[in-house]
Amino acid sequence: MFRFELICSDGKARRGRLITPHGIIDTPVFMPVGTQGTVKAMIHKLLEDINVQIILGNTYHLYLRPGPEVIKLAGGLHSFTGWHKPILTDSGGFQVFSLSKGRTKDNRSGVRVFEEGVEFKDHLSGSLHFFTPEKVIELQEILGSDFIMPLDECVEYPTTYAYAESALLRTLRWLDRSIKHKRREDQALFGIVQGSTFEDLRILSATATVERDLFGYAIGGLSVGEPKDIMYDITQVVCEYLPWNKPRYLMGVGMPEDIIECVARGIDMFDCVAPTRMARTGTLFTHSGKLNITNEAFKKDFSPIDEECSCYTCSNFTRAYLRHLYKSEEISAYILGTIHNLSFYQKLMQDIRIAIEEGRFESFRRSWMERYSSKLC
Amino acid sequence: MFRFELICSDGKARRGRLITPHGIIDTPVFMPVGTQGTVKAMIHKLLEDINVQIILGNTYHLYLRPGPEVIKLAGGLHSFTGWHKPILTDSGGFQVFSLSKGRTKDNRSGVRVFEEGVEFKDHLSGSLHFFTPEKVIELQEILGSDFIMPLDECVEYPTTYAYAESALLRTLRWLDRSIKHKRREDQALFGIVQGSTFEDLRILSATATVERDLFGYAIGGLSVGEPKDIMYDITQVVCEYLPWNKPRYLMGVGMPEDIIECVARGIDMFDCVAPTRMARTGTLFTHSGKLNITNEAFKKDFSPIDEECSCYTCSNFTRAYLRHLYKSEEISAYILGTIHNLSFYQKLMQDIRIAIEEGRFESFRRSWMERYSSKLC
Ligand SMILES: [Zn+2]
Ligand SMILES: [Zn+2]
Repeated sequence: MFRFELICSDGKARRGRLITPHGIIDTPVFMPVGTQGTVKAMIHKLLEDINVQIILGNTYHLYLRPGPEVIKLAGGLHSFTGWHKPILTDSGGFQVFSLSKGRTKDNRSGVRVFEEGVEFKDHLSGSLHFFTPEKVIELQEILGSDFIMPLDECVEYPTTYAYAESALLRTLRWLDRSIKHKRREDQALFGIVQGSTFEDLRILSATATVERDLFGYAIGGLSVGEPKDIMYDITQVVCEYLPWNKPRYLMGVGMPEDIIECVARGIDMFDCVAPTRMARTGTLFTHSGKLNITNEAFKKDFSPIDEECSCYTCSNFTRAYLRHLYKSEEISAYILGTIHNLSFYQKLMQDIRIAIEEGRFESFRRSWMERYSSKLC
Repeated sequence: MFRFELICSDGKARRGRLITPHGIIDTPVFMPVGTQGTVKAMIHKLLEDINVQIILGNTYHLYLRPGPEVIKLAGGLHSFTGWHKPILTDSGGFQVFSLSKGRTKDNRSGVRVFEEGVEFKDHLSGSLHFFTPEKVIELQEILGSDFIMPLDECVEYPTTYAYAESALLRTLRWLDRSIKHKRREDQALFGIVQGSTFEDLRILSATATVERDLFGYAIGGLSVGEPKDIMYDITQVVCEYLPWNKPRYLMGVGMPEDIIECVARGIDMFDCVAPTRMARTGTLFTHSGKLNITNEAFKKDFSPIDEECSCYTCSNFTRAYLRHLYKSEEISAYILGTIHNLSFYQKLMQDIRIAIEEGRFESFRRSWMERYSSKLC
């Protein structure tokens, strides 16, 4: 029912295919984030227009609203949302630790970690909840997402070695309970490698997680404030300890340059709120870097966002018109900006896949990075 | 270049066709409002999907932002916005009188009417502007909209007979100046009938406006707070004094029931913010009345908004999912709601046109109104 096929590789970069009950996904893949069962400022048909192959849903948010009862009655997340292609859901661990904590004045008081699970106050009503590894599996079995994640203990950056170690060991024990509790066979469980920025802990976590023989492996706890070099280094080290024939998912990453750098280190799957969130504030991607479309410089600029982009937005609308829509706070600005940013990511992933297939990933990476200055206009 | 063809009629209801340089419009027609050069929560391709034939733009808003200089440089509103089908622009008169006034504490202080034109403070920055009939024509010649409107003096409801009379006489003098100043031949000017709720003033205004022999005639100053019966009665009286072979546009109207009642009285063109604005607050139209989708009753309702609607939203999504999107304040809620409400209006207009063609408009009107209770769920 699930399969990962490696088609070819170029250095450490890999070109593959994920086979799921809801369709096939070409890797390396970028997965747009659909936190509440919808990708922000998009509707499914616009995602389909740009060939989005899989979206991500957040177990934490969907658990709070509309709640598992409604989604169960609907027959799962695919049926509830009307998105019939693959879906990956996270475990909620990241949100429990980041959103709950963010809401309380005294550090950590919103979250209490026990061996049994984690107690947290939600960010909507402030009520108390308790997530166990078993409950998180059950929730995702109700969601019926294709790829599911086990509950993990997320640590902040920076953290102490001792805390990072204790968290990764607990994450491993929780993983074993998750594996044991999982019932549905039409869902594939990933293991999550933790260990903060400590190489030996990452190796320990990767090795132990791989021993559990899961469908795929995720790298958690990165892109949480650490310098980019460290993120790339940790990704590289972890990938060395992951099996070649299993998919690798770098959670919450990233910017276009991060994606290229981490494909170069062996990552197959990415998700990040950047392209959709930035689209809503007017930051749009181009092959020569990002631009802020609300800038006065674009007032009379009748060229498209990116001359090389063939998306609906770039084919039909000018920077001047888009700037006007953003300045007028029109919803169409967010829609058109999101179409462009996601199309830019889709094109990037496609270019990456072709470059790997054609054995020229290194030169693609060099020339792409050179042009893309990442400077805000 | 412009032509209005009456195909057939059924009682006072008329089935026609407007030929413009940017395409043909079937009447009776509903024109979605695109105040700032975009229909709210829509993108053009979604409007095209539901066969929207013409949109409305607001001269007042486009004058303030992005300003005539930008639109002129872009080559007009069609080219600036990328909407290549017909556009109607209003004169800005209504906004000058309503928005400017709304912004000041002391009654009317934001607007001062002179014979030469009207001075107003804009609702964005509060700066002072002066619109003359000539300037409003020039602005619309820069916009290049297909149908243009002359500056008129709008009065509130209720108002005195004396003020309504003086305003309609000034509107006539301004109309003469507009006609004299108009240069472009690829735009069709309408006359606007005023006179508040006074029948004899409406007749005076209609008769005098028709003497100017314009492409079409608009009825202004209705749907501003007067009872519906009065609105219908005034519409009926005015239509009796309008030539049979010219298009008739009832400005700012209306709700589905208003459209049916006013088609019955001889109106061909309608515009209203209702379907788009209400979509953004979760009020959705169905054949048996309006419903508020955020209502608890829809939490586990897995049926479409309207079983008879074949729009993208109704074909793919349930009330429960839409309610979830609205409760989560997702932009996709507003997009999907707007697609449905506009599709509902499009279908209504199509049903009206077919009923007229088939000579059964009266029975259509009766059975439609009977079902449509207009009750909020
Ligand atoms: Zn683009
Ligand atoms: Zn519908």
